[in-house]
Amino acid sequence: MIETQIQKRFADVDMLGHVNNIHMQQYYDIGKSDYFSQILGLSENMSRTIGVIIAHLSTAYIEQVFMSDPIVVQTEVVKIGNKSFTLRQRIVNSVNGEIKSECTTVMVVFDFVAQQTCEIPTAWREQLSSELLS
Amino acid sequence: MIETQIQKRFADVDMLGHVNNIHMQQYYDIGKSDYFSQILGLSENMSRTIGVIIAHLSTAYIEQVFMSDPIVVQTEVVKIGNKSFTLRQRIVNSVNGEIKSECTTVMVVFDFVAQQTCEIPTAWREQLSSELLS
Amino acid sequence: MIETQIQKRFADVDMLGHVNNIHMQQYYDIGKSDYFSQILGLSENMSRTIGVIIAHLSTAYIEQVFMSDPIVVQTEVVKIGNKSFTLRQRIVNSVNGEIKSECTTVMVVFDFVAQQTCEIPTAWREQLSSELLS
Amino acid sequence: MIETQIQKRFADVDMLGHVNNIHMQQYYDIGKSDYFSQILGLSENMSRTIGVIIAHLSTAYIEQVFMSDPIVVQTEVVKIGNKSFTLRQRIVNSVNGEIKSECTTVMVVFDFVAQQTCEIPTAWREQLSSELLS
Repeated sequence: MIETQIQKRFADVDMLGHVNNIHMQQYYDIGKSDYFSQILGLSENMSRTIGVIIAHLSTAYIEQVFMSDPIVVQTEVVKIGNKSFTLRQRIVNSVNGEIKSECTTVMVVFDFVAQQTCEIPTAWREQLSSELLS
Repeated sequence: MIETQIQKRFADVDMLGHVNNIHMQQYYDIGKSDYFSQILGLSENMSRTIGVIIAHLSTAYIEQVFMSDPIVVQTEVVKIGNKSFTLRQRIVNSVNGEIKSECTTVMVVFDFVAQQTCEIPTAWREQLSSELLS
Repeated sequence: MIETQIQKRFADVDMLGHVNNIHMQQYYDIGKSDYFSQILGLSENMSRTIGVIIAHLSTAYIEQVFMSDPIVVQTEVVKIGNKSFTLRQRIVNSVNGEIKSECTTVMVVFDFVAQQTCEIPTAWREQLSSELLS
Repeated sequence: MIETQIQKRFADVDMLGHVNNIHMQQYYDIGKSDYFSQILGLSENMSRTIGVIIAHLSTAYIEQVFMSDPIVVQTEVVKIGNKSFTLRQRIVNSVNGEIKSECTTVMVVFDFVAQQTCEIPTAWREQLSSELLS
């Protein structure tokens, strides 16, 4: 599991005074990018090569997130398939540990040249498996 | 069921050349706002009164959406509870009918003054029930 | 001059209750995309070919824009140079004509293969000149 | 002058492969929020009290910003008026010092209860003046 601190942006908060659901989703994306970079060594400039896309995503919004809440995203792999793997993520108040939201995402490996899914590269599989066991 | 045409924005598309998942989510939000306005008569300036928040959301990304795809969001209620109701939505190519993505959302009625959930107002319940049967 | 109706999104409005400045900017982008499509015949899928980038942008925020305001963006060319042209845009309440904001943008023609600026293509110049005179 | 490190988000980059202009604008917003917090002690939860709004903004886009560029925003006050003050900002590559973009913003003090502009509070004026001289 890795933990990523989130830098909030003023426009993340909507007229209801809390972080809007699409920006909660974006916080999870920041966690994912960090995970792919740290665990898979995947560059953020990943256009035109083999990368990952989101196939399915399920999010529970448990508590509102306010601008003043110090927030981290926790990201870990929980399942490894043939062409896909599943990440479990949490948005957590980094001071008091309160869980604000949970998200499960099925990521599919995608060949952007061939425009089709493909098997998880061996090097990635080894890294993900190592994470799964830890 | 209502259908909402989506006006795409240039920055909806990411470096992978397709509409980013958070903007797909935002298309669903446009559909929801339209549904609340048309079916519940809920004003978009809903701060400080009784409104709705997202409790849970589950999205399947079936096909990529490109900038040139003409897109509508279909929104319908599929379940009505005590303090919550469930919406089923689809992002569809309006020309060839291809389903790009599906989303199920549990909406909870929320009192922004008391900062707590509350029962679905009677007028809303009637409208939603009428939609559910149609 | 062309006029583009804007479809607002819930998250366009920030905690201050008005459309956030970055989304005002995005409304201008919608107007620009529409202008390039209508006047220059420029496809929105313009990656990897000759396109336009923003060199300079100056915006006056005159009145707040609220969620309930019906908004159009007006876009017109006001100057044509060698490698660049200048657009003047306004965000206007389409019902009462109130001017909410004005924006002047210098657009530079850019060759995304060579990664350098280039001259305005002849066909574009003719279209822009025709617009300038009208 | 203060310097704010920027945490980029995947969707900041558009189909042209560089950070989209609206997200460049959002980087400036992050710098502004940081400045208001550090220099003025202004809370980010500033709704319903005296705050600041953007009256005018002028941005030069000098070099493209890519996902892999380490970026800081530099923010300083350059002019203090009666009801407004002017900030000068730069987006800079924090490793090689390359200036990517410059932005000048006129901020107006705004009373969100009375919904009108008001004079710069004395405490803010002292802090801003102290910054202007340093």
